[in-house]
Amino acid sequence: MDLDDIQIFHDSHNLELRNPFGAVSIGTKVRIRLWTSKKCSAYINLINFYNNQIEIQMKEIGWNSLVNNWVYETEVDTLNNIGLIYYYFRVNYYGRDIIYGNNIESLGGVGQVYFNEPVSYQITIYSKQEVPSWYREGIIYQIFVDRFFNGEDEGKVLNPKKNTFIYGNWDDSPMYIKDMNGNIVRWDFYGGNLLGVKKKLEYIKSLGVSVIYFNPIFDSPSCHKYDTGDYEKIDPMFGDEEIFKDLCSEAEKLGMRIILDGVFSHTGSDSKYFNKFGNYDSLGAYQSLHSPYYRWYRFNDYPNLYETWWGFSNMPNVDELNPSYLDYIIRNDNSVIEKWLRLGAGGWRLDVADELPDEFIKILKKKLKEVKKDGVLIGEVWEDASNKVSYNRKREYLFGNELDSVTNYPLRQIILDLVRNYIGSKYFIKKYLSLKENYPKEYFYSTMNMLGNHDTERVLTMLNNNVNLLKEAVVIQMTLPGVPLIYYGDEAGLTGGKDPSNRKSYPWGKENNDILGFYRKISAIRVSEEALRNGEIEFLEFNNGILAYQRTLNKDRIIIAVNIMEKEENILINNVDGNILDLLDEDKEYIVENRSTSVLIEAHQFMILKVL
Amino acid sequence: MDLDDIQIFHDSHNLELRNPFGAVSIGTKVRIRLWTSKKCSAYINLINFYNNQIEIQMKEIGWNSLVNNWVYETEVDTLNNIGLIYYYFRVNYYGRDIIYGNNIESLGGVGQVYFNEPVSYQITIYSKQEVPSWYREGIIYQIFVDRFFNGEDEGKVLNPKKNTFIYGNWDDSPMYIKDMNGNIVRWDFYGGNLLGVKKKLEYIKSLGVSVIYFNPIFDSPSCHKYDTGDYEKIDPMFGDEEIFKDLCSEAEKLGMRIILDGVFSHTGSDSKYFNKFGNYDSLGAYQSLHSPYYRWYRFNDYPNLYETWWGFSNMPNVDELNPSYLDYIIRNDNSVIEKWLRLGAGGWRLDVADELPDEFIKILKKKLKEVKKDGVLIGEVWEDASNKVSYNRKREYLFGNELDSVTNYPLRQIILDLVRNYIGSKYFIKKYLSLKENYPKEYFYSTMNMLGNHDTERVLTMLNNNVNLLKEAVVIQMTLPGVPLIYYGDEAGLTGGKDPSNRKSYPWGKENNDILGFYRKISAIRVSEEALRNGEIEFLEFNNGILAYQRTLNKDRIIIAVNIMEKEENILINNVDGNILDLLDEDKEYIVENRSTSVLIEAHQFMILKVL
Repeated sequence: MDLDDIQIFHDSHNLELRNPFGAVSIGTKVRIRLWTSKKCSAYINLINFYNNQIEIQMKEIGWNSLVNNWVYETEVDTLNNIGLIYYYFRVNYYGRDIIYGNNIESLGGVGQVYFNEPVSYQITIYSKQEVPSWYREGIIYQIFVDRFFNGEDEGKVLNPKKNTFIYGNWDDSPMYIKDMNGNIVRWDFYGGNLLGVKKKLEYIKSLGVSVIYFNPIFDSPSCHKYDTGDYEKIDPMFGDEEIFKDLCSEAEKLGMRIILDGVFSHTGSDSKYFNKFGNYDSLGAYQSLHSPYYRWYRFNDYPNLYETWWGFSNMPNVDELNPSYLDYIIRNDNSVIEKWLRLGAGGWRLDVADELPDEFIKILKKKLKEVKKDGVLIGEVWEDASNKVSYNRKREYLFGNELDSVTNYPLRQIILDLVRNYIGSKYFIKKYLSLKENYPKEYFYSTMNMLGNHDTERVLTMLNNNVNLLKEAVVIQMTLPGVPLIYYGDEAGLTGGKDPSNRKSYPWGKENNDILGFYRKISAIRVSEEALRNGEIEFLEFNNGILAYQRTLNKDRIIIAVNIMEKEENILINNVDGNILDLLDEDKEYIVENRSTSVLIEAHQFMILKVL
Repeated sequence: MDLDDIQIFHDSHNLELRNPFGAVSIGTKVRIRLWTSKKCSAYINLINFYNNQIEIQMKEIGWNSLVNNWVYETEVDTLNNIGLIYYYFRVNYYGRDIIYGNNIESLGGVGQVYFNEPVSYQITIYSKQEVPSWYREGIIYQIFVDRFFNGEDEGKVLNPKKNTFIYGNWDDSPMYIKDMNGNIVRWDFYGGNLLGVKKKLEYIKSLGVSVIYFNPIFDSPSCHKYDTGDYEKIDPMFGDEEIFKDLCSEAEKLGMRIILDGVFSHTGSDSKYFNKFGNYDSLGAYQSLHSPYYRWYRFNDYPNLYETWWGFSNMPNVDELNPSYLDYIIRNDNSVIEKWLRLGAGGWRLDVADELPDEFIKILKKKLKEVKKDGVLIGEVWEDASNKVSYNRKREYLFGNELDSVTNYPLRQIILDLVRNYIGSKYFIKKYLSLKENYPKEYFYSTMNMLGNHDTERVLTMLNNNVNLLKEAVVIQMTLPGVPLIYYGDEAGLTGGKDPSNRKSYPWGKENNDILGFYRKISAIRVSEEALRNGEIEFLEFNNGILAYQRTLNKDRIIIAVNIMEKEENILINNVDGNILDLLDEDKEYIVENRSTSVLIEAHQFMILKVL
C-alpha cells in the first residue's frame, strides 16, 4: 500500500485538533479533530479506564483550505469517565483501513500511522480539587534527620540504640556495616535530631523554604527508619513528641510546615507489630497466631516465611486493606495519620505509593482532609503518575481524590540529561509537554520537583561536580511549575553517589558558599515572583542548545534561558513592552527598542529576564 | 639386644642425681649422677649454647646399696657457659652402646633409653639478677584502655579519629568492621581513656593490685594500638602526657606502678615513620627514599612491597638493629624508652619478643636499668622461654641480662586443662616441674601468670561459663610462684571468645559480684601471706583428681588443695605442728591431733589451709 495516497494528521498539543489542551475536569467535553488529505471515512476508538472500547464514526466537517485538509471531528463527553480515556483513529479510504495513533514514545503531540497495535493518545479526566497553596507555591527542604544537625550540647547523641555505631566525627563518610551476604549487621548513626532541626529553622528559612519534608522519624532500628518499629513514637534518637510539637509550632511561626514520611506498605520486622526479636512488649505477629497484628502480614510458612518488601527480611509487607490495619493507621480516632497531623504535621508523603492499594490512598486522603482541611498528601511515584501501571493495574493517583503531589522523577531526568548535553532542548520540551498534557494542571503545578534525594545520587555528583551545570539545573528547577525540593546539603555543595554516600552529614561550617549563595538568590527570586509559581509556561523556540521559556501571569512576564552549549549564543526576544532586567544580575538591564532585543548568553550561562 | 641386661637411671628432679636442682647461676658446679644396675663405662655428652658438644667419661663412684645401683658422677662447671647446657648419657656395656636422655616430652625428671637421637636434659645457666620486688611480689591488672572506663563527663569520647565508629552504648558487643577480604575498613572505639583509669584507681587497688599493665597507649589508628603511629605521643583518644604523668603519680601514691606495652618489631603503616597515607607531617619511609626512616624498613619493591608483621599491610616490620632505630627507641637521650620511664612508667612489656633480636632486648634492658634502677622488662613469649627457638635461633630471654619476666602461657594451659579435667594432677605437676627446672628461680617467681588476656579467649569462656571452675583456676593462679595477672573484667565475670569478643567493655554496674568478691578475697590472701609470693613450693601426692601443694617460708606453711573431681575426697595432712585454718573460710579451723588430720574437700572445691 502506498501511504502517499492519503495523509493523516493529529496533534494533541494543537488546540485546533484537541481542545481543551491536556487533562480535563470531569464533565468537560473534549473536541477531537483529525485532518486527512483526502476525503475518507474517519473513526475514533475510545478506550476507558476499565478497558472498554468503542469505535465512533467522526463527523465530517469538510475541507479546510487554511490547513489544506479534510477535517473530521468528535466531541468526547468525559462525564462519568474519571481516570483516563485513550484514543486512536481508524481511517477507511477506498476500502483500506489505516490506523493512526500517538507517537511511539507516547509523548503526545503529533502522532503516526501504525500497521499493528497503535499507541493511544491519553486524556486525563479528574475531579477538580485545589492543592493547598502553602504547599503548591512553596519550596521544600528535605531532611534526613540523622544527618542534618545534632542540636544537643557538645554533640551528645541521644539514646543510642543497642549494638549500633556512632560515627566518630560529624564529617566522617557514611558506610553500611554488612556481613558477607550483604545484610546490615549494625546500624550507623551521626546523631542528628529534631532539636537540631529546630536550631536550624532560621537557616532553612533563609533558603526560601516553606515546607520541610522529613524522611521517616518514627522509632525504628535503622538510620533511615523505613523499617518502622512504632508508628506512634518519635525515634528516641531523634527526640520525642514534645520536641516534635515544639518544632512544628516554631516552624509555623516562620511560615513553614512539616511533611512526614509515611511508610505503610511494610513495617519493620523489629517492630511493635511483628516483633520478630521480642524487643517490644507487645505480642507480635511473628510471635503468635493470636497476635492482634497477625492478620496484617502475609505468611507463606509461619512464622519464618513471610512476604517482604523487595526481599528485605527486616521489612515484612502488610496487607494495607486489612480492617485492623486500616483502623490503626487511618480510621480510628487518633489513628496514626490523625495523631501526627494534630500534633502539628502539615501533611504526609507516602513511601512507595505504587505498593499501596488505590483504596488505601483514597481512604487516607479523605481522613487527612477531615482532620486538616489544608493538609497535603504526596506520593512517591517514579514515573508519569497519570498512567502508572503497577502490578498490572492502572493506578489512581492524580484524579482528584488521591494524591496532591507526586515525586517528579521524569522531570529530574530530563533536567539532568539536558544540562549534561545528553539531550537537546527540543527533546526536553517534548518530554516536558507530555507530562504537562497528562497531569491535571493543579497537580502539574504541585509536583515535587527534586534534582536528587536520599534514593538517588546527589545532583552535584550526577553532574560530575560541575558547579556551573548544577546552577543551570537549579535555574530550571526553580523556574518551572511545581514545587522545587532542596535535598539537605545540596545547597552546600554536598556530593555523593549511591546510598549511603548520598546521605552524608550536612557540612556545617564547610559549606560551598558559592553554591549556597546561588541557592539563596534563586529561591528568593522564586519567592518574590508569583509568575514563577503560578504563571503559564510557554517554550520559546531557539536552537537545540538553548532551553528558553516564559512564565506569564497577568501582566508579569519572565523569560528563562539556559545555554547548554560550549559557545555563546544570541537570542532574540520579541514582543517586549518594556525594558528587561536580569533578575540574577540586577545590574544588567537591557534597553528594548522596537519591542525586540537580542540577548547574549555566554556558554553554559543562564538568565532569568523580567520584562519591566 | 635385651635391655634387661642393664638398667640405667637418671632423674633431674632428684637431688641425689642432679644437684643443685634446676637452673643455676653462672659458675655453679652441677653434680650429675647416673645409676646403672651393672658396672659399665658411663659417659656424659654435654652440648653448650653454641652447639659445641663434648663427651666426658663419668667417674665411677661405686656400688650404692641403698639404691641398689652403680653410681657414676660428673661435675659440670658452668663457668663461661651462660645460656644452656644440654646433656645426655652413653653407657658402654660389654661393647654395646646404650643412649639415655631426657624423656621424650622433654619435661625433665626421669629419662629414657633412646635408639636414635636422644632428647637432652637442660641446665639453664644465668647471671643472677634480682627482679624488683614491687613487680615480683605484685599482682598485675591488665587494661585495654579503650574498653575499661571513660572518665569524661557524660561519656564524651575524646578526639574521635577520622572515619571511625564509636559504639552506640558502652555495653554493645565489640565487632570488627571488615571488607570482603577481611581487611578492617573502620576502627571501632568505646571511648575508654586514661582519665577513666585514674578515676578507677581505688577500684583497681581493691583487687590487691600493685602493677597496672596497659595494652599500647600511643597514637595509632586502631583501637588496639599495636600499629604504632607515634611512639612519643599518647593517643589523643586516651589522653595526653599530662594525664599520663598524673595517672602514674596517683597510682604510685596507692602503691601501684604502670607497665607500658612496647611494640618495637613493627610500626603502623599510618605512622610518623612510614606515613603511607600522608596523615603525618613527617617525610615517611613510604613517601621517599630520602626519608630519615627509610632504612628502618625492609622493602622488597619500593614502596608498595615491604615486609610486614604476619602479612598485615598496616604493620610494616622494622629492622630493630638499624642504628637510627636503636637510637630513637633506646639509645638517645630522651629516647622512647627513656621518655616514658621518666614520665612515670615503671617498666615495659615487649610485644612479640620472639620477633626482636636478642641484641635489641639486651640494649633495651641496659638502658632501662640506667634510667630506672628498679624498672622491669617483660617479654611476650608463648612457650617455655628458657629454651625458645625462633627463626632457627636459640633465644636469650632469661639468662640475666634480658627479660625480668615472661608471659606464662604454658602455666595457663595446664591450669585450664586441669580444672577442665583434660589432664590430671600428675601430668600438671610434671609439666609444672619442667618449667620450674628450666627457669632461673628469680624469673620463675616473676613470670606473668595470666589465665587469659587480649590475645586469648576469656578464662570464663574457656571454662564454659562455669564460675566454680573459674574459682579453682584462680585459686591455683593466686597461690603459685609468679605474678598473677587479672585481665580487666575477668574479675567481674566478663566472657568472650576470640578477638574481638575478648575485648568487651568493662561491665560497670553489672559486675558478677560473686566472682568479684572471690577475686578480692583471694588477692587479699596473696597480699597478706608472704609464703604465697616468696615461699618454696612442694607438691603433695594424692590421687590424680587432687592437686595439692604447700608453700613454705620460714615458719609459715600454707597448703593449697583443689579437688577437680565430681566427688568429695578426704586428704590426709601430716607433720602438722599446730591447728589448721582455711583462709578462704575463716570460720573453719581444723583441730590437729597427733600432728595429722584428715580434711574433706567437696567435689570441685578448694582450700587454702594455713598451719597455725
